[in-house]
Amino acid sequence: MKSKIYVVGMGPGKEEMMTGEAIRVLEESDVIVGYHVYLDLLGERFSGKEFLTTPMKQETKRCRMCFEEAQKGKTVSMICSGDAGIYGMASLMYEVGKAYPETPITVVPGITAASSGAAVLGAPLNHDFCVISLSDLLTPWEKIEKRLRAAAEGDFAIAIYNPSSHKRQNYLKRACDILLERIEPERACGYVENIGREETRAVTCTLKELRDAKVNMFTTVFVGNSGSEMINGKLVTKRGYQIERSIDLCGDDGR
Amino acid sequence: MKSKIYVVGMGPGKEEMMTGEAIRVLEESDVIVGYHVYLDLLGERFSGKEFLTTPMKQETKRCRMCFEEAQKGKTVSMICSGDAGIYGMASLMYEVGKAYPETPITVVPGITAASSGAAVLGAPLNHDFCVISLSDLLTPWEKIEKRLRAAAEGDFAIAIYNPSSHKRQNYLKRACDILLERIEPERACGYVENIGREETRAVTCTLKELRDAKVNMFTTVFVGNSGSEMINGKLVTKRGYQIERSIDLCGDDGR
Repeated sequence: MKSKIYVVGMGPGKEEMMTGEAIRVLEESDVIVGYHVYLDLLGERFSGKEFLTTPMKQETKRCRMCFEEAQKGKTVSMICSGDAGIYGMASLMYEVGKAYPETPITVVPGITAASSGAAVLGAPLNHDFCVISLSDLLTPWEKIEKRLRAAAEGDFAIAIYNPSSHKRQNYLKRACDILLERIEPERACGYVENIGREETRAVTCTLKELRDAKVNMFTTVFVGNSGSEMINGKLVTKRGYQIERSIDLCGDDGR
Repeated sequence: MKSKIYVVGMGPGKEEMMTGEAIRVLEESDVIVGYHVYLDLLGERFSGKEFLTTPMKQETKRCRMCFEEAQKGKTVSMICSGDAGIYGMASLMYEVGKAYPETPITVVPGITAASSGAAVLGAPLNHDFCVISLSDLLTPWEKIEKRLRAAAEGDFAIAIYNPSSHKRQNYLKRACDILLERIEPERACGYVENIGREETRAVTCTLKELRDAKVNMFTTVFVGNSGSEMINGKLVTKRGYQIERSIDLCGDDGR
């Protein structure tokens, strides 16, 4: 009996932003496991599949469920929003999988919010960047502060995930205060809410304004680097191309 | 006459790793502009389109070409490998577009090598991470060094683009030496060559071994954080889930 597990990133939410590979492995799967919000986003196309879920806070149980189904000989996909390997379920699946070494795990990447949110705002991550989550549920806040300071010190563009939640309403303000220790208040920034869904909302602002922005758990925040600027309403971080000198020697994707 | 420009990330190379949105805008386009290597990767599906290209080092000219075609009323797509907004052409397009404010630019995100390479290796970027290019064609080397030090200081997982080229054969070694100032030689690392193409090659190793790895311009390198480990041959950076205590409170994608 051959079984297989895929951990699939479905991107920001709408089917059009999934890759062909993600759609193919879901079609190949007997069982699709995921948080119910993500299962609900899957279209009619997958309505014949067996769906399994657990409540929030039971991600480990959800992973075990995948291996139990796989042991019955089924092909199982665990779905995650964004990219399965960026704050997604891939690493937990490998950890739980220590007890099931005979079941192969394949990660199928998806468009993470850093990519999809950046595309809405313009090109804020078009040079070296950091991705930092402000969620301190699984990471001590001191470590998050340290990373924010390091990101500012390195003059990285920054994508911030989980800037707020019900219990952490002032976390973005705290993060901005740390960044403001080293970054000028006028630094070009922006944020995007509900990326890839009906009510996408994009805002550009300064770092000082970002400090007081109303964000929620569906917002992704972007902080430019020292060379970022606003062009025709878009937040743009230059790759370093010099238009006049035309010394742009690399291929696309930095090659 | 209505014209439109898309800057499209095509992912690592094979069509299956493009999003449905990327395929749709290419199908809608009259003209597809890009470096010839990427044009060649597009399948039969797009063979009826008008293709335009310029040699390497002429990215600015290539962008202008898009606006000139758009001014004729055409819908134009500029294609990039990976994500158009991550070391891709998006920011240069906005810069060149200053002279054509009436032409709207839409960025269509794609799977960047950080995502696709991570998926091959396991889950090396499953917590806060940095993306750094070692190309000093458009960035002073001192700035790259500073960012490497900041990334190590912040205990980020790291994805390194452009670890080598014909002219920069020892750059990965230099980068590893900088990381080794703060990171232990046994740190779990890995690298992937030709992601998403026929000859994908993935290697896991320690930071000390990475220093002497043979890499080229088609390699993407990954350095784990202090909690990364090898599980069943995969490079895994934990999200911080505690399996025993089951305190995993966030949804997928860090929400």
